[in-house]
Amino acid sequence: MPRKKSEPREEEKSEIQISRRGLLGLAGAGLAGIGIGVAGDQVVRAMSTAPHPGNLSYNFYGAHQAGVTTPAQDRLHFASFDIAPGMTRADVIELLQDWTVASAAMTAGKEIGEYGAGVANYDAPPEDTGETVGLATSGLTITFGFGPTLFVDGNGVDRFGLASRQPAELKKLPHFPGDDLDAGMSDGDLCIQACANDPQIAVHAIRNLTRIAFGRAVLKWSQLGYGRTSSTSTAQKTERNLFGFKDGTNNIKAEDSASVNRFVWISSQPAWLDGGTYLVARRIQMTLETWDRAALREQETVFGRTKNEGGPLSGGTEFAAADFEKTNTAGEQLIDPTSHMSLAAPAHNNGITLLRRGYNFVDGNDTLGRLNAGLFFISFQNDPQNFITVQNNLAKNDRMNEYVKHVGSGLWAIPPGAQPGSFVGASLFLS
Amino acid sequence: MPRKKSEPREEEKSEIQISRRGLLGLAGAGLAGIGIGVAGDQVVRAMSTAPHPGNLSYNFYGAHQAGVTTPAQDRLHFASFDIAPGMTRADVIELLQDWTVASAAMTAGKEIGEYGAGVANYDAPPEDTGETVGLATSGLTITFGFGPTLFVDGNGVDRFGLASRQPAELKKLPHFPGDDLDAGMSDGDLCIQACANDPQIAVHAIRNLTRIAFGRAVLKWSQLGYGRTSSTSTAQKTERNLFGFKDGTNNIKAEDSASVNRFVWISSQPAWLDGGTYLVARRIQMTLETWDRAALREQETVFGRTKNEGGPLSGGTEFAAADFEKTNTAGEQLIDPTSHMSLAAPAHNNGITLLRRGYNFVDGNDTLGRLNAGLFFISFQNDPQNFITVQNNLAKNDRMNEYVKHVGSGLWAIPPGAQPGSFVGASLFLS
Repeated sequence: MPRKKSEPREEEKSEIQISRRGLLGLAGAGLAGIGIGVAGDQVVRAMSTAPHPGNLSYNFYGAHQAGVTTPAQDRLHFASFDIAPGMTRADVIELLQDWTVASAAMTAGKEIGEYGAGVANYDAPPEDTGETVGLATSGLTITFGFGPTLFVDGNGVDRFGLASRQPAELKKLPHFPGDDLDAGMSDGDLCIQACANDPQIAVHAIRNLTRIAFGRAVLKWSQLGYGRTSSTSTAQKTERNLFGFKDGTNNIKAEDSASVNRFVWISSQPAWLDGGTYLVARRIQMTLETWDRAALREQETVFGRTKNEGGPLSGGTEFAAADFEKTNTAGEQLIDPTSHMSLAAPAHNNGITLLRRGYNFVDGNDTLGRLNAGLFFISFQNDPQNFITVQNNLAKNDRMNEYVKHVGSGLWAIPPGAQPGSFVGASLFLS
Repeated sequence: MPRKKSEPREEEKSEIQISRRGLLGLAGAGLAGIGIGVAGDQVVRAMSTAPHPGNLSYNFYGAHQAGVTTPAQDRLHFASFDIAPGMTRADVIELLQDWTVASAAMTAGKEIGEYGAGVANYDAPPEDTGETVGLATSGLTITFGFGPTLFVDGNGVDRFGLASRQPAELKKLPHFPGDDLDAGMSDGDLCIQACANDPQIAVHAIRNLTRIAFGRAVLKWSQLGYGRTSSTSTAQKTERNLFGFKDGTNNIKAEDSASVNRFVWISSQPAWLDGGTYLVARRIQMTLETWDRAALREQETVFGRTKNEGGPLSGGTEFAAADFEKTNTAGEQLIDPTSHMSLAAPAHNNGITLLRRGYNFVDGNDTLGRLNAGLFFISFQNDPQNFITVQNNLAKNDRMNEYVKHVGSGLWAIPPGAQPGSFVGASLFLS
């Protein structure tokens, strides 16, 4: 009897668990010789499986993945992975299943796997690395994405039988004027965005998902961000970027469901991305030393906003509507047409707006004593062309370009949320 | 009439302000041609000089510098500086005065300088970079230290007339077995430890102190830390390091004034360091991938403690006293004599104990996908020999050495706290 489409396939499993291979990734060589679950002197301690205390926690499962419209947490660990050579379609599915199980546990404040610091198997490495035991869940979200090379790799090979499913929009971002991209900080078959209000929580997630992927996917590059710059909820105040300006005042807020549905979530096309979106990441280096020597007038002209309040230079407080036509007595526009604000405004981009979710970063300093710092820009949009339109506008004319350099880039399709018993990406692989 | 010793010298100034040179560092070339204070269109806005809202704030002035026994904040930005060639003793004093004024402002939640985002001078760069406007003070502490090379530089030159004031104990730390130090992440004429509960606050402090030093001192290296690993107050719970173990259970706590006075603060010798201490920094790389593959038994043996609870392997909960003599039925010590805990224990180091104040760090990953991560170890002690004794013990025999590598190192004398109207280091330069 032919299987009906709604029936789960064997590979989907109704109650999925981390695969033996995933556990080997967690446990490593030390476990290779012994049977998993055959614990010599397993000890169950009191706090072992209880969720960590803490206020915010978000369900990993749902119609959409968390970490998109979720109120932006304070800390980021973003990671890009490449699938290891020799892996098959079934291997990728198994990896996604393992990542799903582990992510559901971690976002619920639980250790992953069976044996951690709490439930001990002394003969094996703990499956969870343990550094979050006792910490609050801290609003952890883990968001998975699929890059163009997952569908057709750099050699044009359809490794996993996905070529026919690749959306036309999901391709390497075009070269923008001024781009100075480091291939080692760009692209990747898969991405994982881990956000939390405690960096130990976010880093733990990426670390353990990397371990689970051992032998199957390799961490290509990663980026820590320490201060969110774009609020995604009306309940959050606007934070400042490293230029000292409020960033993301006119960002799409989760409460604005009309804009979220119009610009963020994909509706029906392609079917496997229904309820998903696209993630753009750009590592934007800021030349802080140059910026810090620019007069306040120049800084405000570049942004099109006041530095202290963040109001548009046409007048009013932070959330006042910008009047791009308003002029001074000399007839000059109060908001410079080449200001960042003007060029990025929906009014000058066919109404387009993006959901931004970026983070400040500082990665030490160079040998001249200059901070290696900037903005790790992340935006979500239901059509990558929306980002491309805005970024083309900015890359050509933005006065801010004198002070920034785009050094990393990537585009990933964000599938809809996983359903309990299924896994993230099931709509791509199983439907 | 001869000046009495208690009378401030000209160079001390009773109400010190940031020097013209310091303001030039903040303001840069844009200010070179215009008079400071002659603001063309200066605008005073309402929130300009009010302290940021927020719960914790520590006075920069006092008998001791803050940031030593202060309850360890969650985030660190540590920076090492070299004095620029050609600087004189008076230049160094001026720099320390400028840093003092700026640090007192920042720890009080104020923008530094006269013109920032709030008080605007449109013709000049803002003196404060502005990214902390509106943020809470977040318990910021800024702690200054003097390295051996400030007294006699690498060429044996007494640049600042300080050679006779150099304590015998203040010299480059000895080479320890296994050290694999990167000179670019070690030592420095001066150090600044900025700690806060918000990384934006800590990074802002280092960034702006670096700007003030423009042309006078150059940022040599810096390190961000994102999770404290050693509590320094009985009110704090013990946090975990990246090996997943609680770290610093037996740390000196600020409330234990007998230990603080015995092991941390310098008393009277040398006089200029009375009320000061010594800071040791060690960048300890952790080979997480190897550690994560070690069985729980091995991990616990290495530490000498249980992973979940953190109790000594001789029995009991976290704060139970370790019984190093206790054996199992086979006559083996329950706490391995080469465990980290045993070798670091005061009982095996002539009673010596250190005040630790370390932070976890993750700086991306290498090309093999391994996280570049570890512990940025900081300890305070009134005699560097105390650290040397313990570290020699560990470097020779610690079972943990299989999983760690010391790649950065430094020692600085931490002068006592500055007095209002004076500056940090005045006891060295003026008495």
